[in-house]
Amino acid sequence: MTDETKTIWWNDENNSIMMIDQTKLPVEFVVIEVKTVERLADAIRRLEVRGAPALGVAGAFGVALSAVSCTSDVEFAETVASDAALLKSTRPTAVNLAWGIDKVLRSMENLPPEMARFLAITAAKTIAEADEKCCMQLGHNGATLLPQIGTVLTHCNAGALACSTWGTALGVIRSAHKMGKKISVVSCETRPLLQGARLTAWELHHDNIPVTSIIDSEAAYLMRKGKIDCVVVGADRITKDAVFNKIGTYMHAVCAKHHNIPFYVAAPISTFDVEAVEADIIVEERSRDEVAAFWGKPTVPEGVPVINYAFDATPLSLVTGIITEVGVLYPPYDFSNLRQM
Amino acid sequence: MTDETKTIWWNDENNSIMMIDQTKLPVEFVVIEVKTVERLADAIRRLEVRGAPALGVAGAFGVALSAVSCTSDVEFAETVASDAALLKSTRPTAVNLAWGIDKVLRSMENLPPEMARFLAITAAKTIAEADEKCCMQLGHNGATLLPQIGTVLTHCNAGALACSTWGTALGVIRSAHKMGKKISVVSCETRPLLQGARLTAWELHHDNIPVTSIIDSEAAYLMRKGKIDCVVVGADRITKDAVFNKIGTYMHAVCAKHHNIPFYVAAPISTFDVEAVEADIIVEERSRDEVAAFWGKPTVPEGVPVINYAFDATPLSLVTGIITEVGVLYPPYDFSNLRQM
Repeated sequence: MTDETKTIWWNDENNSIMMIDQTKLPVEFVVIEVKTVERLADAIRRLEVRGAPALGVAGAFGVALSAVSCTSDVEFAETVASDAALLKSTRPTAVNLAWGIDKVLRSMENLPPEMARFLAITAAKTIAEADEKCCMQLGHNGATLLPQIGTVLTHCNAGALACSTWGTALGVIRSAHKMGKKISVVSCETRPLLQGARLTAWELHHDNIPVTSIIDSEAAYLMRKGKIDCVVVGADRITKDAVFNKIGTYMHAVCAKHHNIPFYVAAPISTFDVEAVEADIIVEERSRDEVAAFWGKPTVPEGVPVINYAFDATPLSLVTGIITEVGVLYPPYDFSNLRQM
Repeated sequence: MTDETKTIWWNDENNSIMMIDQTKLPVEFVVIEVKTVERLADAIRRLEVRGAPALGVAGAFGVALSAVSCTSDVEFAETVASDAALLKSTRPTAVNLAWGIDKVLRSMENLPPEMARFLAITAAKTIAEADEKCCMQLGHNGATLLPQIGTVLTHCNAGALACSTWGTALGVIRSAHKMGKKISVVSCETRPLLQGARLTAWELHHDNIPVTSIIDSEAAYLMRKGKIDCVVVGADRITKDAVFNKIGTYMHAVCAKHHNIPFYVAAPISTFDVEAVEADIIVEERSRDEVAAFWGKPTVPEGVPVINYAFDATPLSLVTGIITEVGVLYPPYDFSNLRQM
């Protein structure tokens, strides 16, 4: 994959961040150049870049951008710290964002600004490259779990567009496809912002992997009709007891259990928050308008409130296996040995 | 309720059908006049009128419209039969449509055209009035099942807009509210056509019953968080073994079972198809565009197929009770005594 087909990458010429604007797909394919931390924060909030691993890379590049943009040596430490805090505040539930930011911050610790600027860029690029390798390995580990011929249901976009490239849940599907397995995908559209319809369907269709788009609430009925062989989704945060992922994931997990269909989560180790439990995590609530209007035109009457959780939590008891770059984890889950990674 | 606030009614002055155009809500409140059977068939196909009991009334008025429109006595019987067949073909899964059509046809049987025209209108009006009384009685029967204070989840629109007035699932909620119970409603938006967001939220907000709109896939998570006390939905057809209702109903039933939340179906006796089983019923598949575009703009990439079932089937094993105008039915379900009604 060349830089031009990656989701997010560093532009050495301008010391800026390049990314696909994911809000424009599938109607338009637009690459944007992000030159300031404020613009990056905005891009994250507006979901121009989204997906747990991609947010890790975006956070890492964001710290690098902050470091190279701050030309004052005196205010350097303070500026970078405040930019990092700004970036972390944009999406509170996704753990990878903070993980990427902290990883680059640590690489700069106690270094003079000139060296810190250089090392920040190197560290961020290393994270992006590691993400690629991680997805390839994760995909390989998960591909063996998929049937030789079958249909996989997925929700939201845990694809190349959610990572640097390849993807987590879709990485598993891509690896299986590459292995010669005949996999079809049912992509749930993923209300309110339709990442499944817009992004997952676009990615897979582009790669000639058969994909069908459905409304989210049809998944259970397709399971009842015997049309789904397994479910593979990504994750935004995995605590000791639950998987946080795009709203709707929990519903699929409950329905998969009811139909005895395997339910897999594909996520890199950077997604694990091994000290926390479900109750510790604040689930981001997003604006009423995301649900109550479509392309600016209201779908919900004025005065009627909306509850718009961006994520839900699926207890580990409903998860058949967690596919990571170091192998597949199975119940009873014990993440204590992941702490040192 | 005056005629002007009903969903569908007969216009004696013009011998035509008046109805609220439900595709325009909540942005505009528009009443349309339907003067031909072809226009009515189109209105049913386009969901300008929808909802099982309202379709029964629409079918009944449709036969009356056919009878008064056909001025030739020679071609009368043939024209009415062919119009009835056209109307039946518009929505194959909803049993009430055919039920309303057949009921008016039977009232005209073996009568000279002049008398048949008059009796068709009378029979159709009787069906509309009976629907009102039926909903009031059904609502009363169901209201006692709801908690004194609590939150009811519903899907799609089984409200006044799905009937002549009052509603089935929403009739239960209205009756409970009238009884002084403190009921809040969570209305699932109901993709693809958003009848829950547009119609249910509009109706309840209009009646000052607290209502919150959510995306369909958030329902399970709200159940997990203990925010839902029971589920009440309507039905389009009830066979010996399953309830056919708007796609998404089955998912809610599975999730309600998982969380030990009561799952009620509210439907008049005219919805029962007591000779059939789930496997006999063809579930209507609607156009790709309903799912793949929003207000004309694509949400699914070109070339990616869509599966768009209008309904799903919920096995009776997941249904806590069926609320009808003659009482609440409980498991083990036996509909054999409903045959003669």
